[in-house]
Amino acid sequence: MSTTKPKVAILLGSKSDEVAMAGCCQYLSKFGIAYDMKVSSAHRQPDETTDFVKNAEKNGYSLIIAAAGMAAHLPGVCASHTTLPVIGVPLDGSALSGLDALYSIVQMPAGVPVATVAVGAAGAMNAAVLAAEILALGNAAIKQKLVSFKKNGARF
Amino acid sequence: MSTTKPKVAILLGSKSDEVAMAGCCQYLSKFGIAYDMKVSSAHRQPDETTDFVKNAEKNGYSLIIAAAGMAAHLPGVCASHTTLPVIGVPLDGSALSGLDALYSIVQMPAGVPVATVAVGAAGAMNAAVLAAEILALGNAAIKQKLVSFKKNGARF
Amino acid sequence: MSTTKPKVAILLGSKSDEVAMAGCCQYLSKFGIAYDMKVSSAHRQPDETTDFVKNAEKNGYSLIIAAAGMAAHLPGVCASHTTLPVIGVPLDGSALSGLDALYSIVQMPAGVPVATVAVGAAGAMNAAVLAAEILALGNAAIKQKLVSFKKNGARF
Amino acid sequence: MSTTKPKVAILLGSKSDEVAMAGCCQYLSKFGIAYDMKVSSAHRQPDETTDFVKNAEKNGYSLIIAAAGMAAHLPGVCASHTTLPVIGVPLDGSALSGLDALYSIVQMPAGVPVATVAVGAAGAMNAAVLAAEILALGNAAIKQKLVSFKKNGARF
Amino acid sequence: MSTTKPKVAILLGSKSDEVAMAGCCQYLSKFGIAYDMKVSSAHRQPDETTDFVKNAEKNGYSLIIAAAGMAAHLPGVCASHTTLPVIGVPLDGSALSGLDALYSIVQMPAGVPVATVAVGAAGAMNAAVLAAEILALGNAAIKQKLVSFKKNGARF
Amino acid sequence: MSTTKPKVAILLGSKSDEVAMAGCCQYLSKFGIAYDMKVSSAHRQPDETTDFVKNAEKNGYSLIIAAAGMAAHLPGVCASHTTLPVIGVPLDGSALSGLDALYSIVQMPAGVPVATVAVGAAGAMNAAVLAAEILALGNAAIKQKLVSFKKNGARF
Amino acid sequence: MSTTKPKVAILLGSKSDEVAMAGCCQYLSKFGIAYDMKVSSAHRQPDETTDFVKNAEKNGYSLIIAAAGMAAHLPGVCASHTTLPVIGVPLDGSALSGLDALYSIVQMPAGVPVATVAVGAAGAMNAAVLAAEILALGNAAIKQKLVSFKKNGARF
Amino acid sequence: MSTTKPKVAILLGSKSDEVAMAGCCQYLSKFGIAYDMKVSSAHRQPDETTDFVKNAEKNGYSLIIAAAGMAAHLPGVCASHTTLPVIGVPLDGSALSGLDALYSIVQMPAGVPVATVAVGAAGAMNAAVLAAEILALGNAAIKQKLVSFKKNGARF
Repeated sequence: MSTTKPKVAILLGSKSDEVAMAGCCQYLSKFGIAYDMKVSSAHRQPDETTDFVKNAEKNGYSLIIAAAGMAAHLPGVCASHTTLPVIGVPLDGSALSGLDALYSIVQMPAGVPVATVAVGAAGAMNAAVLAAEILALGNAAIKQKLVSFKKNGARF
Repeated sequence: MSTTKPKVAILLGSKSDEVAMAGCCQYLSKFGIAYDMKVSSAHRQPDETTDFVKNAEKNGYSLIIAAAGMAAHLPGVCASHTTLPVIGVPLDGSALSGLDALYSIVQMPAGVPVATVAVGAAGAMNAAVLAAEILALGNAAIKQKLVSFKKNGARF
Repeated sequence: MSTTKPKVAILLGSKSDEVAMAGCCQYLSKFGIAYDMKVSSAHRQPDETTDFVKNAEKNGYSLIIAAAGMAAHLPGVCASHTTLPVIGVPLDGSALSGLDALYSIVQMPAGVPVATVAVGAAGAMNAAVLAAEILALGNAAIKQKLVSFKKNGARF
Repeated sequence: MSTTKPKVAILLGSKSDEVAMAGCCQYLSKFGIAYDMKVSSAHRQPDETTDFVKNAEKNGYSLIIAAAGMAAHLPGVCASHTTLPVIGVPLDGSALSGLDALYSIVQMPAGVPVATVAVGAAGAMNAAVLAAEILALGNAAIKQKLVSFKKNGARF
Repeated sequence: MSTTKPKVAILLGSKSDEVAMAGCCQYLSKFGIAYDMKVSSAHRQPDETTDFVKNAEKNGYSLIIAAAGMAAHLPGVCASHTTLPVIGVPLDGSALSGLDALYSIVQMPAGVPVATVAVGAAGAMNAAVLAAEILALGNAAIKQKLVSFKKNGARF
Repeated sequence: MSTTKPKVAILLGSKSDEVAMAGCCQYLSKFGIAYDMKVSSAHRQPDETTDFVKNAEKNGYSLIIAAAGMAAHLPGVCASHTTLPVIGVPLDGSALSGLDALYSIVQMPAGVPVATVAVGAAGAMNAAVLAAEILALGNAAIKQKLVSFKKNGARF
Repeated sequence: MSTTKPKVAILLGSKSDEVAMAGCCQYLSKFGIAYDMKVSSAHRQPDETTDFVKNAEKNGYSLIIAAAGMAAHLPGVCASHTTLPVIGVPLDGSALSGLDALYSIVQMPAGVPVATVAVGAAGAMNAAVLAAEILALGNAAIKQKLVSFKKNGARF
Repeated sequence: MSTTKPKVAILLGSKSDEVAMAGCCQYLSKFGIAYDMKVSSAHRQPDETTDFVKNAEKNGYSLIIAAAGMAAHLPGVCASHTTLPVIGVPLDGSALSGLDALYSIVQMPAGVPVATVAVGAAGAMNAAVLAAEILALGNAAIKQKLVSFKKNGARF
């Protein structure tokens, strides 16, 4: 198993999504996973977002977590520009209660998957746990923390 | 009013969407609107799609019609890269009966609209009629055809 | 390009929709687009509404924005009486969270399109941006404002 | 009770809706209720539709049955132009399985009701039964047929 | 036209539905239509409800308005025991936002219609307006009030 | 444990529901549970249905299985007239794909439950298995068959 | 009829579900049914949950009530490990308003039913009433209380 | 990077799900990823399923793909018994068009994620691509195939 510490990128569709993703950051920290969080909308900063994603692997990221509400294209746009795993978190921020974000994220066409988790706060935390499960395949320290977490009823 | 003949770009998320969009092409032709149709998935050919959209205005297009099914990001991706009007056609090609495509297209965040029409064949035709209504603002020939179309009960 | 300043008509299904449409007015003003706003329900003042729409073009309007909730027929009724582009904003004002308005507006039959935007406040703002994109095809001043808006991350 | 035979108007959004409404005609005939059926789209022939509805009472109709699919505005448009009762039949003719028509018909704003029945064939028959129940309030012959119908398990 | 004053029965699924139906009572009064309101659940007092409905016509009622939430069987149960017109008002009182009540009321099988109006407060008022439209067919005083109401923009 | 053989009543909203309930009958037979099946609509034969349900316990039934589609009131109407357990099977027979039946059956108000199973064929079989589980509490022969069924992967 | 007092097990997916299930406990007590309530998530304590359910019958429980929100697997997991009847209560605790829990509980595959009741508080109470109806088949004291409850309008 | 060849376990809720998952197997083979496929229902063979999942890591599996329809608990049950990543594929096999499976899989509570992909055939293929993306983090051969796949428009 590798000894290098993996790093995760968190992309948010909007500044206001930081609150909803607080649990994700907390959980990543508890799993000992480094992360950078960045607001970069797929629709407002498309080039910046694309550049970031295209260089994510080169810049040392192993995995991307992308959260967005409404027509939540951010996770899918990430997935189209990288071969890293992309985890998508649908956020509830519109009249349609997050169903719009859920469908926009999970219903990706064949060939370009987004690993989708639950709508809102539970999904934010689960993005971190899923990241830990993925990174633990190649990192014993994370694996150990994950096993403890699991033994403790999937809580810290 | 301008005498230059406007040109429309039709982008499809997949080759198989051509059938669903046949009515759009037919209607554009009847309105005397030139168009180019191109399969360019937002997820499979993201760079090609982005390049096409960024250069659309320079290449003489006045308007983009984008059709896609499932997590239909194509219209929104177009809208993020141009100031031309983008018309989005949600296609019905999954278990969710086009609701996934509808929500993915219409629920765009503030600042980056997609002009959304009905799911499927009616929407395909209406994309053409909406394009005609928009282009008729600056083109007397299209205006005249539109007025006849309207007088004829919105049929040719 | 034309030098005449285009004018937009905003129709509301009810007086109480003014709040939801505040962002639309603000954005139109920032794009330098003149507008008149009028409460004229498709169901309560059908003749007044029809008359207004039939004369809209003659009265100098280039485009109609219509907003309504519940069985939101207003945009479709507008579309049936004009060849001007009609933008529809579904409002969230019932137990069904705006889904009723969304379906009533977007699912127009072939031949009579309504350019539908997102439910609620984001849609209100996007109606203005879409109007700017359409009018910018024939107006250099709006085009310039739109390009700045876009460069600024689709915000003013 | 009156001895004049009441007459019902059936309006269809499109020629293709005749099949779905066959049961309505059959049932009206069996209840001995005269009817005229007319294709008159709210969106394609708005003036013709409005004229017909405005003159419906004067022309001897006691009640209007309006059937439409998709953004089914026809019943609501009728209701906005008459004080006669309007029965709306949502038809299933799109990707959204008639939910679009149901919401467009039933969610009318306060003051302008449409008496909505089930989606599709059952609704078509029930529009006739409801018409019979309404007209039977003033017509003994229909009342008698309705009582027999009811005794026979709500079948002829 | 008859000179007898018609009377309407309002049945509520639960005491707590009185608030939601306040607008119905107000509107009936303004149309000069007498009514009796009674809480009689289809599920808690099935025999009492059935008895009331079976005798409604004999007891001078011309029409029944039934309002209920959740699995709102009350209007359908009424319709199964009378040949009077039954108007159903779906109320929003559960996690499913009134969709459960709407489907339970509108989707009646062929032969046993319920005239369904909008979910909640708008529907409550519209039940009264629809009752007025139906009763006005045989009552000139109500007709006159209805015509004034309509002229006033469907408001009192 | 009792040695008397329990008997189950199956009520169907319509003759055409027999096909959908074939699996229920088969399963009941395999569990050695006697049953009578009867078409008795809550809306077409309300008195007959009520009489049957009121006398069900006296006539030796321990449990009622009621299946219906659309506005599926039959299970709830049964539940309102008996203290026997009522199992409801929502059938898929309308444009709304059985969602109407599901909501009409499961969303019963406090005090009058219906034990709801899955929509359609799986639900029909599960009504029988649930009946077996309930009756096995007082019948060793059914219990034994149920244990074998379970050991065999919940199949016969 | 048996004279032994039956006992019910209530399982909750999470500690926070206790509030939603308060009505269930109250009702069971009023029916004189003993119960034990235990928080045991299908996902956090899978082995503990499985052990509890496998031994439920041996430990004197006649019936299991399981309540959960979101992807509410708890009732189905119970049903897979016992031949006792399992009643499932979908709780409303996410962006999807309990629809997620409802579908996860009611749509069980053929062979493994969960007796599903309404979403939320009404369902919690109905789980108790349904338990009473089931247990009353073999217990005269509960039967008597149930008959009184029914006579009193399905209320205590 | 590791040189050991990773192995994936595919679990199906039912034998009939093999057809829907054909694309998953094909894609895994093309990525050079070994897999074992096993029908093991969460509800019919709960102990067998649990045993398999608990021993999956020890038996050399790096990742589990679980596919199921209706109340699709299989992926969540897997996730509750392992710290390996679990990918869930919702299948469309009921009246609810796979929405039941989607909600049952994606709406997992905090702490126990399932990486959810699209409903049906596209999701089956995407489960394989997502598995490849995850395993490629520690396997250069898969990475290389993934890069080619991506360059080829996310197709083989």
